[in-house]
Amino acid sequence: MKLIITSDYEEMSQISAQLVLSKMYSDKRVNLSLTAGSTPARMYEILKDFMADRPYFDNVHFYNFDEISIEGEQYGLTMRSLNEQFYHPCTIKKENIHELNPTNYENYDQKITDDGGLDLILVGIGADGHFCGNLPEYTKFENETYTVMMEEGDKNFKLLHELIGKKPEGATVTFGPRTVLSAKQVVLFANGEHKADIIQKALEGPVTTDVPSSVLKLHPNLVVVLDKEAASKLSK
Amino acid sequence: MKLIITSDYEEMSQISAQLVLSKMYSDKRVNLSLTAGSTPARMYEILKDFMADRPYFDNVHFYNFDEISIEGEQYGLTMRSLNEQFYHPCTIKKENIHELNPTNYENYDQKITDDGGLDLILVGIGADGHFCGNLPEYTKFENETYTVMMEEGDKNFKLLHELIGKKPEGATVTFGPRTVLSAKQVVLFANGEHKADIIQKALEGPVTTDVPSSVLKLHPNLVVVLDKEAASKLSK
Amino acid sequence: MKLIITSDYEEMSQISAQLVLSKMYSDKRVNLSLTAGSTPARMYEILKDFMADRPYFDNVHFYNFDEISIEGEQYGLTMRSLNEQFYHPCTIKKENIHELNPTNYENYDQKITDDGGLDLILVGIGADGHFCGNLPEYTKFENETYTVMMEEGDKNFKLLHELIGKKPEGATVTFGPRTVLSAKQVVLFANGEHKADIIQKALEGPVTTDVPSSVLKLHPNLVVVLDKEAASKLSK
Amino acid sequence: MKLIITSDYEEMSQISAQLVLSKMYSDKRVNLSLTAGSTPARMYEILKDFMADRPYFDNVHFYNFDEISIEGEQYGLTMRSLNEQFYHPCTIKKENIHELNPTNYENYDQKITDDGGLDLILVGIGADGHFCGNLPEYTKFENETYTVMMEEGDKNFKLLHELIGKKPEGATVTFGPRTVLSAKQVVLFANGEHKADIIQKALEGPVTTDVPSSVLKLHPNLVVVLDKEAASKLSK
Repeated sequence: MKLIITSDYEEMSQISAQLVLSKMYSDKRVNLSLTAGSTPARMYEILKDFMADRPYFDNVHFYNFDEISIEGEQYGLTMRSLNEQFYHPCTIKKENIHELNPTNYENYDQKITDDGGLDLILVGIGADGHFCGNLPEYTKFENETYTVMMEEGDKNFKLLHELIGKKPEGATVTFGPRTVLSAKQVVLFANGEHKADIIQKALEGPVTTDVPSSVLKLHPNLVVVLDKEAASKLSK
Repeated sequence: MKLIITSDYEEMSQISAQLVLSKMYSDKRVNLSLTAGSTPARMYEILKDFMADRPYFDNVHFYNFDEISIEGEQYGLTMRSLNEQFYHPCTIKKENIHELNPTNYENYDQKITDDGGLDLILVGIGADGHFCGNLPEYTKFENETYTVMMEEGDKNFKLLHELIGKKPEGATVTFGPRTVLSAKQVVLFANGEHKADIIQKALEGPVTTDVPSSVLKLHPNLVVVLDKEAASKLSK
Repeated sequence: MKLIITSDYEEMSQISAQLVLSKMYSDKRVNLSLTAGSTPARMYEILKDFMADRPYFDNVHFYNFDEISIEGEQYGLTMRSLNEQFYHPCTIKKENIHELNPTNYENYDQKITDDGGLDLILVGIGADGHFCGNLPEYTKFENETYTVMMEEGDKNFKLLHELIGKKPEGATVTFGPRTVLSAKQVVLFANGEHKADIIQKALEGPVTTDVPSSVLKLHPNLVVVLDKEAASKLSK
Repeated sequence: MKLIITSDYEEMSQISAQLVLSKMYSDKRVNLSLTAGSTPARMYEILKDFMADRPYFDNVHFYNFDEISIEGEQYGLTMRSLNEQFYHPCTIKKENIHELNPTNYENYDQKITDDGGLDLILVGIGADGHFCGNLPEYTKFENETYTVMMEEGDKNFKLLHELIGKKPEGATVTFGPRTVLSAKQVVLFANGEHKADIIQKALEGPVTTDVPSSVLKLHPNLVVVLDKEAASKLSK
């Protein structure tokens, strides 16, 4: 594990962008999987500066790592987010985008290995320790891509139900821990004081499904990029 | 995970030897960690045919992955075993052998990363699911190289006590799961019917410290080489 | 460059087989390019022992590196040879074989990079220093896959004309030096006294198009496997 | 070869910095070789922003790739330049800097392979096509690190003689083409209209010692980063 503690969100975003971009400067096929959400917001702005309207990124393919499909909508939450934050601003060609959704998740791991494997996956961490869609209550480390099984009494059920207009079960798919850890490089990034506790647990605590991202530290080529607030509870 | 089911022990040994030898045919420094014991016995004979008295292996370094030191002896059980099975017959130079022992284990992970990391580690599996010195009762997945803490009531205490002529605590050191998983490639091999149950649990069951080797399947570059008896309980 | 001097043709073949096989033991897509001819004859027998009827090589793809097409025949000389020596005995699936021929050579380099690049290419050396179809009179180091332009007065013209039943121009296609050198690993093998002179020139002499294979020593990951006769003129 | 044509010197410098920095974010030993001179001036400013006073780069080692030693001075021209531009501003530790000079050049290639090989080398190109100290009149592609043999009538002799206060022969050492090409990744960068002609020759012309950098395009993992002026004479 390489731990990089930066001075602020800007530096965290710059370094994350360097890691992602440097993989793309290859003539051979490159397969990447990048997170949506608030943590990468600034990173995607930087990527735009180096990717938009460039003719030399046809070799780079993108694999979505989770999805929450919405009733009556073509795209789920993740695809919608990535389209807005990344695929459209960075002018990624449609044929280089590999959507994950409830109809194709069962063959998705096989598809990735057939395509040569992921060169890099960039993930964030939730305050509850989740990464991708691997939530504390539902995570099995041995899982490949799966649909998250929620029951009506579950904590996230009602929340998601309202959000997506249908029962979440079957609507939510995600790379399992094993899919994520099968990438050649894993980058975990986080910023802000509200991530300090979970970062401490994930990086310095036991490997446990109670903190799903605690398993990431077992990857042979993990880079962790934090701002100093997110790193503030680390002992060393 | 690449699963290779061979017809017999001979083929399992040949393929394991191919994996190990192919790493060595490089002009650059190569770092390997190979298990001692009965499983690799035939593999070491094959290695001898391709390594003994060859002038072109000065670039290859070997890192012992566990040790049980014995009272009044220069070498512990692992070093003694590897000397007999491998280092002497294959004419490995002393300066290319990196012994692990109770006096140097604390800095061993740092030493490996300073040396460029392990290119390959070859491990066996015990009937109880252990790999290296990671026993079911004592394993924490987050551990790097550590000394196994045994107490007098423990199952293995008496056994080891008699074997090594002193209290095992402090005498037993091992790569932790995290050290093993930090290698660029992991090879797990096993043969025989008596390994069929544990292989099924390790490869198809949950990732759990009750079966320490169950964690190996999270490595992005794992090759499992089995004879058909060891594979006989696998569902697919 | 890693130079391995073996005691005989058998050992040369075994080590070549180890290098080739070890690449295949991956769960991810692997792309290989292997030579036909007499040098690999024994190696292909060894490959057969480890490949025929194995269910776990669907991830491995093969790219032919040259071709001499024959009038009125479906397959050219190389494809015919590889079918006999390798593809049929080793039960390679049709969809994993990527034929090169005069109709597709222009897009072949792009196809390879789109597929992720070659993981290994295994080449022999002619007594005149050629590798693949790169002959002393026709080689440009900067060439990617090309058709060898022969004129009626040329040394090989008449020979090939009789062999293939038509004018060789346009019938002969080959990876150029640049295609070969774009592989992640290059293995060059040779055996026999009749190769000793050219091996000395290729490995110890200047990089020159007069000895096309002299350029191979510029590759960052070249392994040369020789029997002791082929190595007998080397100075060190 | 990956060709990246940027809009200006700033973007060329940013992308070069991304490539170099991304290699450093590893916990394992990393070996780099970076050019001195005017082309990297802005890149080194960017590196400073991400490297100065950072505690997490102890794993990164730097290997100077040429030297012109000066009479009566401790450091030659290259070491002096790198100290000013890079090593001092980026607070590189002395033990991580591997000086090349006339007293150690003969064992330098061996030292690099013993240390695990170069992960990346960044080179510029002279208007005459030279890279490192490989000048058109003196280059042999098969050379590893060597001392450039100049005679009194030579073009550069008088120039260097005045500059360094002694006869240049024996004072000038450089990585040969083979040393450069043995790196795992090669990055070539150039900016400005005055480089347009030589860039066209090096990238699109024949591989010839008249244009030493023409050989770089044979590397399997070459990235070329140009501003649009330097790229203006390219045909595609």
